[in-house]
Amino acid sequence: MKVLLGDKLVEREDVKIDMEDRGYQFGDGLYEVIRAYNGTFFTADEHIERLFRGAEKIELVLPFTKEELKNRLNELLVANNIKTGNVYFQVTRGIASPRNFTYPDPTKVPAIFTASVTDVPRDQEQMDKGVTAIILPDYRWLHCDIKSISLLGNVMAKHEAHKKGADEVVQHRDGVVTEGGSANMWMVKDGTIYTHPDGNLVLPGITKIVLLKVAREAGIPVKEESFTLEQLKEADEVFTSSTTIEAMPVIEIEGVPVGDGKRGPIVKQLQDLYVADVEKNCGKIR
Amino acid sequence: MKVLLGDKLVEREDVKIDMEDRGYQFGDGLYEVIRAYNGTFFTADEHIERLFRGAEKIELVLPFTKEELKNRLNELLVANNIKTGNVYFQVTRGIASPRNFTYPDPTKVPAIFTASVTDVPRDQEQMDKGVTAIILPDYRWLHCDIKSISLLGNVMAKHEAHKKGADEVVQHRDGVVTEGGSANMWMVKDGTIYTHPDGNLVLPGITKIVLLKVAREAGIPVKEESFTLEQLKEADEVFTSSTTIEAMPVIEIEGVPVGDGKRGPIVKQLQDLYVADVEKNCGKIR
Repeated sequence: MKVLLGDKLVEREDVKIDMEDRGYQFGDGLYEVIRAYNGTFFTADEHIERLFRGAEKIELVLPFTKEELKNRLNELLVANNIKTGNVYFQVTRGIASPRNFTYPDPTKVPAIFTASVTDVPRDQEQMDKGVTAIILPDYRWLHCDIKSISLLGNVMAKHEAHKKGADEVVQHRDGVVTEGGSANMWMVKDGTIYTHPDGNLVLPGITKIVLLKVAREAGIPVKEESFTLEQLKEADEVFTSSTTIEAMPVIEIEGVPVGDGKRGPIVKQLQDLYVADVEKNCGKIR
Repeated sequence: MKVLLGDKLVEREDVKIDMEDRGYQFGDGLYEVIRAYNGTFFTADEHIERLFRGAEKIELVLPFTKEELKNRLNELLVANNIKTGNVYFQVTRGIASPRNFTYPDPTKVPAIFTASVTDVPRDQEQMDKGVTAIILPDYRWLHCDIKSISLLGNVMAKHEAHKKGADEVVQHRDGVVTEGGSANMWMVKDGTIYTHPDGNLVLPGITKIVLLKVAREAGIPVKEESFTLEQLKEADEVFTSSTTIEAMPVIEIEGVPVGDGKRGPIVKQLQDLYVADVEKNCGKIR
């Protein structure tokens, strides 16, 4: 398998990371996952824009222009002959020794970029059927708008769900629903869809942007408003969204069915609208 | 320089970390820093105990016993002929592919351990003079009791201080002082010393434990109680503590002198008591 290390395509086994890479010692870096369908990236520009915004927030000097990054990712996709799959890439603040919390001088310590692609088919069956979820307090930091690799909070939450036999986790702060484990969280009530507004408590999801757009175009009422666990209990439908799972119905929360325990009509409509948007850009996918 | 990779002493330049090490992709790991004086580690057992407690909290299966770890760290110290310095070590959840938030099976994916030592003399001048600090909201996660390598929150806070020309940062949640950038925070008022109690908002500092012990033995009144920014403003003395800085006076906060802007008598006494405790274990250090 070929991967990217900086601006070079190299063999996977040839990539070695330094033990004093700030990504390794401090979780000091950013990442993105972009999905490709039929050999074409979907919303690549939006993901790249978000990476650049994140980099500005943490003053990380990226070692490429947006165009260069996009070209490299395309080369990686082609080199591995991936049609439907995910590219994962991350940028860290580079190798600084001796270890010191303060950012090193970026003119002396260049950022480190790595990327790999994986073949991941669409799981249509799961998207039809939906997933189960548990509820947990959101223990993460207060910069969830930054897609950083300091992810232990998310990792622990998702593992807790896994241990309890659930697929997903509903995270909340003092009863206000924020996000899934690594996905935006939505509910539908009386035909209106709700999701937590952007800000420091949630990631500005790219799939969320697409879903908001297609929903509005289709005339579905949308409120970018947070909702509580109490409201969630009374929801007609619940779903999550992310690059890899698109719009995913949540059919059971803490053992209690959501609505009638099956995928609801609004999330089905959103899934179809999302696929149509993907197909406009990447060709037929189902 | 020799470093530890697993149970082997190897050359620094021979250590290469995998790009899918969970430490690199998720900040999924723990670390410790132990200080050596005169070639002997101080409070090694306490640091090792904390590592094991943290590992239990995040279900990370450590690849050694406490005794084995201690022996390896001692070998590392000797191999590099370090007398007064710091050993830094970290353990991550290992290399798991494809990337997945959920913990991999520890019987199939072993944890990765790395350690290095650095010569770091005591900065007596700084400890006499003290440091300056700014105040920032504590944006970190709600498991600050876990000494994880998902440190971007701390990194950003310390960098903010650095940018503003300060040495340290006072972090607070809704006006309640929690910690420094990577140190416990203390104040002295009317002869009593205060520091935030252990719990999920602060690291259970090893230096804090030692300072609490020597203070109590010396009959200095101690309250493990949190204090507010308002109380901080009225404090007679302020100081921070960590393995590397011992007890460090904070002489100015946001440009305003603390007390008379010089190291106060209580922190001086604590520094002396701390040194005495070190000297009992490691021999003369000043």
